[in-house]
Amino acid sequence: MMKMSDLGEFGLIGRIKRTASRLSASTVIGIGDDAAVLKPSSLRRELVTTDLLLEGVHFDLSHTDFYSLGWKAAAVNLSDIAAMGGIPRFCLVALGIPPRVSVEQIAGFYRGLNTLLRKHTTDLVGGDTCSSLQGLCISVTAIGECEPSRIVTRSGARPGDRVYVTGTLGDSAAGLEILKKRGNVQGRKTRGVKLVDRHRRPMARVEWGRALALSGCVSAMIDLSDGLSSDLSHICEQSRVGADIRADCIPISSALQSMSGSLPRAPLEFALSGGEDYELLCTVRPTNVRKIQSLKIPMTEIGIITPGNILSLVDDRGRRKTLSPSGYDHFRGDRNGRGSLWKE
Amino acid sequence: MMKMSDLGEFGLIGRIKRTASRLSASTVIGIGDDAAVLKPSSLRRELVTTDLLLEGVHFDLSHTDFYSLGWKAAAVNLSDIAAMGGIPRFCLVALGIPPRVSVEQIAGFYRGLNTLLRKHTTDLVGGDTCSSLQGLCISVTAIGECEPSRIVTRSGARPGDRVYVTGTLGDSAAGLEILKKRGNVQGRKTRGVKLVDRHRRPMARVEWGRALALSGCVSAMIDLSDGLSSDLSHICEQSRVGADIRADCIPISSALQSMSGSLPRAPLEFALSGGEDYELLCTVRPTNVRKIQSLKIPMTEIGIITPGNILSLVDDRGRRKTLSPSGYDHFRGDRNGRGSLWKE
Repeated sequence: MMKMSDLGEFGLIGRIKRTASRLSASTVIGIGDDAAVLKPSSLRRELVTTDLLLEGVHFDLSHTDFYSLGWKAAAVNLSDIAAMGGIPRFCLVALGIPPRVSVEQIAGFYRGLNTLLRKHTTDLVGGDTCSSLQGLCISVTAIGECEPSRIVTRSGARPGDRVYVTGTLGDSAAGLEILKKRGNVQGRKTRGVKLVDRHRRPMARVEWGRALALSGCVSAMIDLSDGLSSDLSHICEQSRVGADIRADCIPISSALQSMSGSLPRAPLEFALSGGEDYELLCTVRPTNVRKIQSLKIPMTEIGIITPGNILSLVDDRGRRKTLSPSGYDHFRGDRNGRGSLWKE
Repeated sequence: MMKMSDLGEFGLIGRIKRTASRLSASTVIGIGDDAAVLKPSSLRRELVTTDLLLEGVHFDLSHTDFYSLGWKAAAVNLSDIAAMGGIPRFCLVALGIPPRVSVEQIAGFYRGLNTLLRKHTTDLVGGDTCSSLQGLCISVTAIGECEPSRIVTRSGARPGDRVYVTGTLGDSAAGLEILKKRGNVQGRKTRGVKLVDRHRRPMARVEWGRALALSGCVSAMIDLSDGLSSDLSHICEQSRVGADIRADCIPISSALQSMSGSLPRAPLEFALSGGEDYELLCTVRPTNVRKIQSLKIPMTEIGIITPGNILSLVDDRGRRKTLSPSGYDHFRGDRNGRGSLWKE
């Protein structure tokens, strides 16, 4: 194991530069100067998003490997670009590295990061590296682009719009639960490994977000980072509407279904407030429902946008209860008093 | 004093959004969606840079107020845009906030940040806020723009070029030294307050960098964040040249000169390896020297670019010694074995 102090700051920057994802002619100057120089598309709008991932708050190194951490740091940001209907183009990463972390671990982080970036033809164009006296600190900025008329915000939902989600929900939070109980989970045949993988290496739904935006059928969109109830409440607040969500329509994976007996909460609860699934939540005008279905994206209709500002969960007998945002609030802990259980 | 837990994550985001610097018609969507939506200039290249500032590594809250910290976080990034010859346009800020930090302190941080951003007509368009279990963690991304033919990199210096610096050097490091010895320093008449101010609230030399770039006379440029010897070595490495620096030409402020008796190191030493002055270091072809002087920018010729790869310091009797990069290496500490003295 090589220490960071043997390699030095400028040695590290040299290594990062040599292995960086670099695919686009739009990257005029990448890593190594005071700033990256990019050639943005003149016909498209630019999308920019930044996220901070802190050890002990967003991840626990006792059950996350560095490759997965790099992958996830990229995925979390590309997911935000996907949720606007955009194409990711460029990425910058700043790391605060504690002395206990080795050069090999940091190399693993960048391998994971670059693997996801290359998958989405996104260039690593810059960043920063420094020492951290406390935990590992990761900051990622992603830059994407989208045609002006195709950008999907959170504020376009109208009463009557149908609510859709891609993929299945709750897997990531259930995976985290398994990791916390068992520690490291490895091997393809291990029970729960599918859920753990969804937690450690989430997919950014870039192709789906792009197809949805290009279809012109989506009135509002957000990625599911905090949990369905919380992220839906952002769309409802910003669109000034409410929503009725049908509990029995929420898509649960067979992996989560089959593990439900050995988990402390029901699959539906993981799906509603779990977070970190990085699936897309969107609303669709009723007249566009057939067109959306023809896109062949794995997505499920889970409810309808209503007037007013109430989010309700409706069960299979038509009974409704208020759905309060139960995702993680960083300064309050979970609103149900669960502390930092959900978003570690 | 209001606790962050009383305001909550989304209460904080609302406050940040209401007070954010927002001046440009190019900001299509600012804070509040999955990503900011920007309309970049179609004729210019885009410049992007990111920096991480960590408590205990880059700043010490026992002698930095939050207003100054916000100011400095912005200045450090705009300085990188200035060093490329660009105009800053947009900024994103991510904060990891420990529970002991109050809402008022965070409000102070954003006041300082927005003050500097407004001064440079730069919009705060996005960011992230989360809790931190350890120190305060600040990540800033700045986006600027520059005409393709006017971008100044680190790699264009040639033998014979003259070396210039703007302003005076060493003040910031001397200011930090005073803060460490005396703790908080306030009041306009306090001895050393000018030096302390330069440490706490550095200026980003945006107008100067821009004028230098537009003049077409500058062959390479970098901002002085790590210290003259270290930052000059970046220009020399990337341009594959050396440099002779004349010790008696390095500009020292009268404030630093007058304090030199009560400081542990000589002014020249602060100037060579102090860092955090955020002045501009640039190289100029001999034929352009007269034109550069006509720009009326306060700048000083301090040496000449040489063939080879040696950086030398030449004294007033013509004696030379090798100038080794003595700025702060984040993973090694200072190369002179001074630990983290210089870049706190």
